[in-house]
Amino acid sequence: MASVANVARVDLVIVSNRGPLTFARDVAGRLVARQGAGGLASSLGPLVAGTGATWIAAAMSDGDREAAASGLVEEGGVRFHLLTPDAEQYRMAYEEVSNSTLWFLHHRIFDLARQPRIDHHWWDAWEAYREVNRCFSDAVAELAPDGATVLVQDYHLTLLGAMLAAERPDLRAVHFTHTPFCDPGELRVLPDPVVHELLTGMEAHRACGFHTERWADAFAAGCRATLGVPPRTFASPLAPDIESLRKVAASEDCAAATERLDATVGDRHLIVRVDRIEPSKNLLRGFVAYDDMLARHPEWVERVVFLAFVYPSREGLADYVAYRLEMEQLVAAINRRWGRRGWTPIVLDIHDDVARSVAALQRYDVLLVNPVRDGLNLVAKEGPLLNTRDGVLVLSREAGAWAELGQDAIGINPFDVGGTADALAAALGMDARSRHTHAGLVRDAAGRRSPQVWLDDQMAAAAR
Amino acid sequence: MASVANVARVDLVIVSNRGPLTFARDVAGRLVARQGAGGLASSLGPLVAGTGATWIAAAMSDGDREAAASGLVEEGGVRFHLLTPDAEQYRMAYEEVSNSTLWFLHHRIFDLARQPRIDHHWWDAWEAYREVNRCFSDAVAELAPDGATVLVQDYHLTLLGAMLAAERPDLRAVHFTHTPFCDPGELRVLPDPVVHELLTGMEAHRACGFHTERWADAFAAGCRATLGVPPRTFASPLAPDIESLRKVAASEDCAAATERLDATVGDRHLIVRVDRIEPSKNLLRGFVAYDDMLARHPEWVERVVFLAFVYPSREGLADYVAYRLEMEQLVAAINRRWGRRGWTPIVLDIHDDVARSVAALQRYDVLLVNPVRDGLNLVAKEGPLLNTRDGVLVLSREAGAWAELGQDAIGINPFDVGGTADALAAALGMDARSRHTHAGLVRDAAGRRSPQVWLDDQMAAAAR
Repeated sequence: MASVANVARVDLVIVSNRGPLTFARDVAGRLVARQGAGGLASSLGPLVAGTGATWIAAAMSDGDREAAASGLVEEGGVRFHLLTPDAEQYRMAYEEVSNSTLWFLHHRIFDLARQPRIDHHWWDAWEAYREVNRCFSDAVAELAPDGATVLVQDYHLTLLGAMLAAERPDLRAVHFTHTPFCDPGELRVLPDPVVHELLTGMEAHRACGFHTERWADAFAAGCRATLGVPPRTFASPLAPDIESLRKVAASEDCAAATERLDATVGDRHLIVRVDRIEPSKNLLRGFVAYDDMLARHPEWVERVVFLAFVYPSREGLADYVAYRLEMEQLVAAINRRWGRRGWTPIVLDIHDDVARSVAALQRYDVLLVNPVRDGLNLVAKEGPLLNTRDGVLVLSREAGAWAELGQDAIGINPFDVGGTADALAAALGMDARSRHTHAGLVRDAAGRRSPQVWLDDQMAAAAR
Repeated sequence: MASVANVARVDLVIVSNRGPLTFARDVAGRLVARQGAGGLASSLGPLVAGTGATWIAAAMSDGDREAAASGLVEEGGVRFHLLTPDAEQYRMAYEEVSNSTLWFLHHRIFDLARQPRIDHHWWDAWEAYREVNRCFSDAVAELAPDGATVLVQDYHLTLLGAMLAAERPDLRAVHFTHTPFCDPGELRVLPDPVVHELLTGMEAHRACGFHTERWADAFAAGCRATLGVPPRTFASPLAPDIESLRKVAASEDCAAATERLDATVGDRHLIVRVDRIEPSKNLLRGFVAYDDMLARHPEWVERVVFLAFVYPSREGLADYVAYRLEMEQLVAAINRRWGRRGWTPIVLDIHDDVARSVAALQRYDVLLVNPVRDGLNLVAKEGPLLNTRDGVLVLSREAGAWAELGQDAIGINPFDVGGTADALAAALGMDARSRHTHAGLVRDAAGRRSPQVWLDDQMAAAAR
């Protein structure tokens, strides 16, 4: 965890599903902490290092569970408390409610003729979700100092507001959602009592934060329609941690990755995307748009490479495996159609490698970020901040980051593959002067905020 | 066409994709008219019989095209004019825009991670849609008497308002939508210029009608958000033509079908559904709910039959074929799981037979109408009006008919199969007295309006 000159915050409690550290035995058999996965943790971790704040998260690994057994663990000036809810309850809450229901709902990727199926088993999963939220709430109630500020993170933990308001009304609890928030009409997919419990749980926080006004407004509209009250909301987009990105960019791993990229791309133009393999990221239409671009702008045949650094996630869910296979077959078909000796039109790499992703973001001529819906999309900010070639950002208007970057990026409707193909061609064909102006404007917009400002907004909302 | 004592309406022009009559050669080689398919035509046809009104529709069959070649055809006191737009343009407009895009959008059945793909070919289809609308508009402009009332029907023909306002501002054109209308956030799936053209085209009518306030409000919200103006809207739910239903019910075909039903069902309880095979009708979750009902309420095993009279449609679209196959496999699996000698839990019949459907609606103990979204759903009204056994209506709150029947029906969230299973069990288990009260209330609500009132509402909107 980076050591930053942070002020003391012993009255701050952070609550998230996944913590910033994960524990494992080293070769000597000692339980040691290392940085965990997850964008939230890597943004928030450095901000609270050395502050004496408390961080409550679920134990994810065997090492985590061992650490949990020893209670509070102090590490890097943060007091970690890892929770071990019942494993099957946790699985149901995490996979069936959080990731298969709420994630799909807020990103609007349900195939509604078939999904969701709210069956009796689902109701058990909802009960498990409630129990896991209760487990987190109990830990907060037990550990939080009098009048502490509690920052509850994301869609896994929506019910703590109501639980804490009942048990610890002295606490100043704020919720922050990292996903989009669906429109009131979309909420109707869930059973009424679930919608009521979810919104009541969130609304009982001192305030609910989102990455853009759009999601805050959608949440507020849902509360007004269902609960009859307007909630307290705020919009505060997260930003990348530039210092830590620059550290990766200066690393030997990154230099080696850049060399390998140079060998792959040569003097061709380079389109890049960096994403989880995730239906909401709209990988399929991105590749179809590229295919269409080659057909309609044949001047780019053999003169461009599309580098897709996309890595598997949630492969415990059948939808994600199916989506990956569909993507791999599509890429293979496009490469068969266009490829020739010495030129692979799409280079697909599904291994997660941060240094290589950073190298690609430094080097792109065009960055494609085309989600069907996205809470924010940090890559859309990281790319322009890292890029050294006046690269062009092609950005979906359905990403939360659109509110900050849309004025300067080349905007697309993510469902419009013809429009996306045209946007890619326009981005590739932009003259040097326009690229320079564009890149400067997008970089400025992407760099206007910091993780610290984002944290401060939550603290301010708690203090109001 | 029924001969009704209608008032003369030579200044009335009806415009719909499919007309109330279709033409074919008889054995003697003469071109003769017979009643066509389609709920709209069967509702509206009798109302304008003998009035001298003009009806403009697309030629569907070879016989239609022969009739079209001879210009206006007078039949049953209505002047038919059949149009023959370019066949490929018509196919693209009908299949790719109307049925694969607008239908899916308004019923919210896109699998948005994959559909729609607005590619360059789609834009050609949109151009074809515009041309087909132009073809209808030109015919209206040519044939409509001075100051005539023009009733434009449904989502195939949304652009006539703007076209006629420019060419024939003397006409009083009203549009009526038979589907739901999607929320403003859902409209964002389409390219902005398409949304603008669609809403402008509709809004330029004197008024736009819908089956419920909900769809009218959604359309109005879209217009305000996109065009900055509130459109003139009205809500006017269609109703079944009771007389013609009773005529079918009194027919020999229906008596024979009732006998066959009696033999199939015996003294078991009877759940019925009558639908097109259509993803928005939510057939899959209906069968899963029945399966769940048998598991959780085993007292109904062998004591109930689920009769599904569902008939294929739009099988030129891969989605519809896939949906039918998925449904057939699901029904087979449920029948394998529960079936025993002498009892088939689900009797699935995919042949379209009006007399048999009417017989089933007379005889049900429970009628299941569970669409994920539906403009109105006439079956939800026809069933209670025909039923002779104090049958119970289980109705989705996402059907337009919910506004009229929701207070008295057993309501369900169509995504909630557990809730639907409970609703089926509750409906089957209702005591005779409650059933009698329920059936009376639902029948009254279903019979409160007539097709004539619906037509009058459109005429009144045109006159304003």
